[in-house]
Amino acid sequence: MKLALLTIGDEILIGQIVDTNSAWISKKLNEIGVKVKKILSIADSADEIKWAVNLLMSENDIVLVTGGLGPTKDDITKTVLCEIFNTKLVFNQEVLDNVNELLGKRNVPVNNNNYNQAMIPENAKILLNKKGTAPAMLFEKNNSYLISMPGVPFEMKHITETYVIPFIKEKFKTNNIFHKTLVTFGIAESVLAEMLENVENSMPDYMKLAYLPTPGYIRLRLSIYDYKSEYQDKVDEVLEEIKKVLGNKLLAEDDLKPEIIIGNLLSKQGKTISTAESCTGGRIASLLTSIAGSSKYFYGSVVAYDNSIKENILNISSEDLEKYGAVSQQVVEQMAKGVLELLKTDYAISTSGIAGPDGGTIEKPVGTVWIGIASKTKTISRKFSFFNDREINIQRATNTALALMIEFLRVEENSG
Amino acid sequence: MKLALLTIGDEILIGQIVDTNSAWISKKLNEIGVKVKKILSIADSADEIKWAVNLLMSENDIVLVTGGLGPTKDDITKTVLCEIFNTKLVFNQEVLDNVNELLGKRNVPVNNNNYNQAMIPENAKILLNKKGTAPAMLFEKNNSYLISMPGVPFEMKHITETYVIPFIKEKFKTNNIFHKTLVTFGIAESVLAEMLENVENSMPDYMKLAYLPTPGYIRLRLSIYDYKSEYQDKVDEVLEEIKKVLGNKLLAEDDLKPEIIIGNLLSKQGKTISTAESCTGGRIASLLTSIAGSSKYFYGSVVAYDNSIKENILNISSEDLEKYGAVSQQVVEQMAKGVLELLKTDYAISTSGIAGPDGGTIEKPVGTVWIGIASKTKTISRKFSFFNDREINIQRATNTALALMIEFLRVEENSG
Repeated sequence: MKLALLTIGDEILIGQIVDTNSAWISKKLNEIGVKVKKILSIADSADEIKWAVNLLMSENDIVLVTGGLGPTKDDITKTVLCEIFNTKLVFNQEVLDNVNELLGKRNVPVNNNNYNQAMIPENAKILLNKKGTAPAMLFEKNNSYLISMPGVPFEMKHITETYVIPFIKEKFKTNNIFHKTLVTFGIAESVLAEMLENVENSMPDYMKLAYLPTPGYIRLRLSIYDYKSEYQDKVDEVLEEIKKVLGNKLLAEDDLKPEIIIGNLLSKQGKTISTAESCTGGRIASLLTSIAGSSKYFYGSVVAYDNSIKENILNISSEDLEKYGAVSQQVVEQMAKGVLELLKTDYAISTSGIAGPDGGTIEKPVGTVWIGIASKTKTISRKFSFFNDREINIQRATNTALALMIEFLRVEENSG
Repeated sequence: MKLALLTIGDEILIGQIVDTNSAWISKKLNEIGVKVKKILSIADSADEIKWAVNLLMSENDIVLVTGGLGPTKDDITKTVLCEIFNTKLVFNQEVLDNVNELLGKRNVPVNNNNYNQAMIPENAKILLNKKGTAPAMLFEKNNSYLISMPGVPFEMKHITETYVIPFIKEKFKTNNIFHKTLVTFGIAESVLAEMLENVENSMPDYMKLAYLPTPGYIRLRLSIYDYKSEYQDKVDEVLEEIKKVLGNKLLAEDDLKPEIIIGNLLSKQGKTISTAESCTGGRIASLLTSIAGSSKYFYGSVVAYDNSIKENILNISSEDLEKYGAVSQQVVEQMAKGVLELLKTDYAISTSGIAGPDGGTIEKPVGTVWIGIASKTKTISRKFSFFNDREINIQRATNTALALMIEFLRVEENSG
């Protein structure tokens, strides 16, 4: 089957926003065995929309359209689709009920603009949007389908997961795709590629190994785009070889974020955690608390950005702060122990580093980061040199701290 | 003049990377008065490349191509361009010298793959790439131009700035583009559209108003794609009218993130800030510290997720916690005052809410969030009902808290 994405919105063509929707949809489709043929972005212009829809529908089985469905004047997708599919707008009570329910919850009055959102192309099938006021719409023409979705990312994701993926699975025979992801950390991509060269050379042609780097860790994805059950022995063999090469740098055998792995380990052990963050500025806490149910094991954090906070709240020795500096083994270990005692948790993570762009010295250049981990009986720390931009340094420090915590929890689990 | 972007690479179509190049180029072009007509992404496939180049060149004056110029065998753009422009590869000494120089600096040995990079289509003009081994190339056909650039972001940026922008300025008369962005918060998009209906109806055809929503705030962009100086009076008039309608819901008159606006206000006033976060879990702190130089005004935070932290560290009255619950005006105000005193800052932000998916009650459903702001002399708080997913509730609470802080700082500034 052939599928194309069409993104509508001036904001993309003038570079005001980056089109993250297309990457997200492409990835989701890939997981069910569909490779996107083309991604096209055009302006909020009737002529452009007509041209693009006709072109893409003539050569694809499905065209997924995002954007241009908002309640405001600049959003013209719906009326242009009416022209293309030779239909007219009719009132839809179900859509208005949904708008009423959503806005009612937020105490926002329903107005004419919202009423217009309940006007729907007569020959479209409505895909009700439970996350927003603009419904998605399914059209058919000459055996080709078009689904028009809002461009707001969380609404688009909801529509894709609820309607688009099931629709494609039902209507089309997709390949049997096999994906297995291993998460590894602490190895540069080029070094990892060298370590895995022999394994990759021994892999049969139907297997593909992809490297998906994130600041701080790398996901390795083994894929087979036309999987057959007789491949399974070889798959198991290759995965075993990869795991042997990775050794203790293997963080997870599933595509799980580090903050989820930590949550699972803590829940299993019935233990609690806190953080004392300097250069990561609350990023670790905000990742840990992004997980539903984290209040069971995450107690809190002290973001100790200014040295006075390190001293007064976390009880760091002022002599050590002076003698070794805030970015030091001595201080980061005291931070971990300090927050553990203060917030009365079983484990604690601490960070202290120079995120940049300023604050670096010859001895401690921008990107130098100390990470500490404490339990009631043990404190460890490690130094890292990231040497990136501020944002990437913060991300790497955050993910590396989470990876170290996972390693620490696994050791505790095995020794306990 | 008409211009389109073409991105070549499987990694985009399987969602492995987000196409940030196109947004960057579009923004740069917009600054010199060129609005990109289309952005198209296709796979590393000869057929797709031929189809796309022919299509885009037939309807544009310039096509900018990125990707597929690397030294490995999956990069086929150059050979396909030879077919399209009916030419052959010839050796180019200048390109090889550049490759030798670049790799020599990095102590990387030059191999056969690199030698192949000095093979250049005979009828292309070489645009030497000082940042990488693959040169950019300029082709012409039927009065339409094509420039092929590497996809590596910093190489692409170098080529765009050094060759593409000057080439366009020299060859074409470009429009004068006008953009003005206003940031507003606390108004639903549909309500905002209604408030601005009269202004929009009175706008001349050459003006366009776009709504760009983010959880917690909306950016409004007024654009004129063929700006003339005689429009300026009308522009000023329309902007004044919009600002009058927005009133104190106008967060910024430039396209600035709230965390930058706060940083600017605090720096200007020479004041400091801290946060006490429950439902936002450190998100506010991590946004504030994402800004370079934030250590001058941001002191730290207490992420008080567990009630024991609210009680023991932030000194919240245990009776109030019991009587009113953690998500209450009483507690959120004590949190703001508590962290202000504890961390000795001039201002403090606090949050307490039910992010979900669990923890909601009939009286306090998921999405209920209290936000507090304290200065040394004043404490305010407000209740919000977001009713979204956990992640969006957290984002809205975070952005709304920043917006309230901006409002508070402006009042302080005007009264001080």
